[in-house]
Amino acid sequence: MVGNVIVGQSGGPTAVINSSLVGVFKTAKDRGAAKVYGMVHGIQGLLDGRYVDLDEHIRTDLDIELLKRTPSAYLGSCRYKLPEIGENNEVYDNIFKTLYTLNIKNFFYIGGNDSMDTIRKLSDYGKMIGSNIAFMGVPKTIDNDLAVTDHTPGYGSAAKYIGSIVKEVIRDGRVYDAKMVTIIEIMGRNAGWLTGAAALARGEDCEGPDMIYLPEVPMDVDDFLKRIGELQKKKKSVVVAVSEGMKLADGRYVCELTDTVAFTDAFGHRTLTGTARYLADQVAKKYGCKTRAIEFNTLQRCASHIVGRVDITEAFQVGGAAVKAAFEGETGKMIVLKRVSQDPYQCITETYDIHEIANVEKKVPLEWIDMDNVYVMPEFLSYIRPLIQAELSPIMVDGLPRHLYYADKE
Amino acid sequence: MVGNVIVGQSGGPTAVINSSLVGVFKTAKDRGAAKVYGMVHGIQGLLDGRYVDLDEHIRTDLDIELLKRTPSAYLGSCRYKLPEIGENNEVYDNIFKTLYTLNIKNFFYIGGNDSMDTIRKLSDYGKMIGSNIAFMGVPKTIDNDLAVTDHTPGYGSAAKYIGSIVKEVIRDGRVYDAKMVTIIEIMGRNAGWLTGAAALARGEDCEGPDMIYLPEVPMDVDDFLKRIGELQKKKKSVVVAVSEGMKLADGRYVCELTDTVAFTDAFGHRTLTGTARYLADQVAKKYGCKTRAIEFNTLQRCASHIVGRVDITEAFQVGGAAVKAAFEGETGKMIVLKRVSQDPYQCITETYDIHEIANVEKKVPLEWIDMDNVYVMPEFLSYIRPLIQAELSPIMVDGLPRHLYYADKE
Repeated sequence: MVGNVIVGQSGGPTAVINSSLVGVFKTAKDRGAAKVYGMVHGIQGLLDGRYVDLDEHIRTDLDIELLKRTPSAYLGSCRYKLPEIGENNEVYDNIFKTLYTLNIKNFFYIGGNDSMDTIRKLSDYGKMIGSNIAFMGVPKTIDNDLAVTDHTPGYGSAAKYIGSIVKEVIRDGRVYDAKMVTIIEIMGRNAGWLTGAAALARGEDCEGPDMIYLPEVPMDVDDFLKRIGELQKKKKSVVVAVSEGMKLADGRYVCELTDTVAFTDAFGHRTLTGTARYLADQVAKKYGCKTRAIEFNTLQRCASHIVGRVDITEAFQVGGAAVKAAFEGETGKMIVLKRVSQDPYQCITETYDIHEIANVEKKVPLEWIDMDNVYVMPEFLSYIRPLIQAELSPIMVDGLPRHLYYADKE
Repeated sequence: MVGNVIVGQSGGPTAVINSSLVGVFKTAKDRGAAKVYGMVHGIQGLLDGRYVDLDEHIRTDLDIELLKRTPSAYLGSCRYKLPEIGENNEVYDNIFKTLYTLNIKNFFYIGGNDSMDTIRKLSDYGKMIGSNIAFMGVPKTIDNDLAVTDHTPGYGSAAKYIGSIVKEVIRDGRVYDAKMVTIIEIMGRNAGWLTGAAALARGEDCEGPDMIYLPEVPMDVDDFLKRIGELQKKKKSVVVAVSEGMKLADGRYVCELTDTVAFTDAFGHRTLTGTARYLADQVAKKYGCKTRAIEFNTLQRCASHIVGRVDITEAFQVGGAAVKAAFEGETGKMIVLKRVSQDPYQCITETYDIHEIANVEKKVPLEWIDMDNVYVMPEFLSYIRPLIQAELSPIMVDGLPRHLYYADKE
């Protein structure tokens, strides 16, 4: 059933999340949707009655091309958790009232596993009250930690960014004829998909990082320091990639070992930052050499100036596939990517029960981490390599990448 | 006089320093140089007899294109200060002996103002001992703080990188419907050329940073906090760019106000890092909102995946112009860029007495900083805009930018 459509973006952004938005918008329009609305700041915004008519924002084919290349969630995002069904039905009534008012027949939510929890609850509630609205999840996260799907759109571009920048940082680290240890801190609290992407840097023209520490395995700081010492006997510039979420054997985060106030935010939350700085300080203390701590930071999720074409195309495809499935009667599902061929790489889309995906976290298989737990295995690279292929050049205007502007979101 | 040629790279690298190396190499070969040697790790390496025959490294036209796109000094760099003439002539004897042995008639040094001090001393010493070797400086630094020259190769690409990334970070900062203050820390200890480049982000599709603090003017942290409060009344996401070298009125660096050990390196040097973190913490304490501190770090000088074509072309040109001038008999000079037209932008090269350039630091004119000292004036943008124009795409291989490999530098 076509009717009207609403789409929202949720959770942390990626460099290609707007390509999925375009995929939903364009496919819905092409398939006859009268109106395509966008939730402003996701479900949280919708609860406040904040939505826009996307026709007023995406007017031309150039707008579409710009939007694909625009980083961060165009419509704004949220980290809002719906109450359990039965706990507070007022929230659900509120949402469905808005959906009925707008004559919505199809609801799309672009996000990660927390966001899929929203789709799960809304589709369950819709079923309970006999609504005929389709609820579909569109996968997105740089963390690549969604279950069932081969990978998530957004991951490939983040991995491509990390691989590219790690190559540059390794080069930079070799510039002086002096001992130097560079620790690179990469996103991914519990899953090492992004940190492992640092291994992409190793190739004919780059020695690659010397060690890679994934959060799937606890870190032994003394062993780490010993290995640094061994490496320094062989080479002057040592580069190590670590996940921001590295833990010790006792379960504490490595970054908790820092004793500065700088890592507690205004809400008293300990932010996961400082792992690289802590390790670099330990190296400096033990070996007396120059060290650098580099945090890749939010650039991993917003570097739209170097996205992968495979990734941005798949991001569009999962949006389009969600619309097709919903219009053909499916609901309570998420679009998943299925790799049907490795060489040549081919991925198709399928739909999958949202209950099996929401709130589940997919980690790097332990057999893809080497025996010493300081690097990834070739299987990891075989998996990731196709996902970073090809480029979609930014549209450069007056020397800088152009984005689609959204003036009045605040 | 042609004879043989030697070229070295010195000081901090840039994304286009190797384009100048190519400019020297190719022009020297084209103009009949028999041998073009490269110093490994600059003058310091030469003192240890470390040099290579560049013909063995740059073999094909593709090598040349790759080398132009390779970040960090290909030959390695150093931060070596020659003794004053008369202080330790053994060092000079050593250098000239090597130059005579290699039948060097032309000596090129690609670097910033410290490196130009090397050219000054060598040319003075050469004159003193009646040597017929030409010594020429080739300008390079992301900091843009060299005297006389309109700007320095390397600056344009760093500025383009900063402008591009600041746009992305501003987008990212608006993703949630919550108050957030982002402080971006940008390189440039004493000169605000790079930090001011954050202003490039402001345009039709981006509101730009809300404030920009250059190190040319002391910072008043209380006033800064007051302004943050005012901005927060008008908008949720506030983004501020600050130089790593911001000082207080009493002359202390802002980053000295942090009380963590993390900012003292193994040699006991206080590194200029932590300015953004300190300011973000002050904001969090005063206003209780979410804050982020982002250090752009070494990526500013090694992001070869997004270089400017104007910049990389000029980097090549200054290398070529140095060779031409030396072959025509000049010595003790640096190549300078002279802007002969602003619209359309045109720059020519000239030579200039090295004594007027070495060790001099060019800062942002105070009249290019706004009255409140929290932004740059339109004159700054008119100056910088032509320097970031156009692109030179990376050569992508298997999903990542390709560089020219140098296997055995260590």
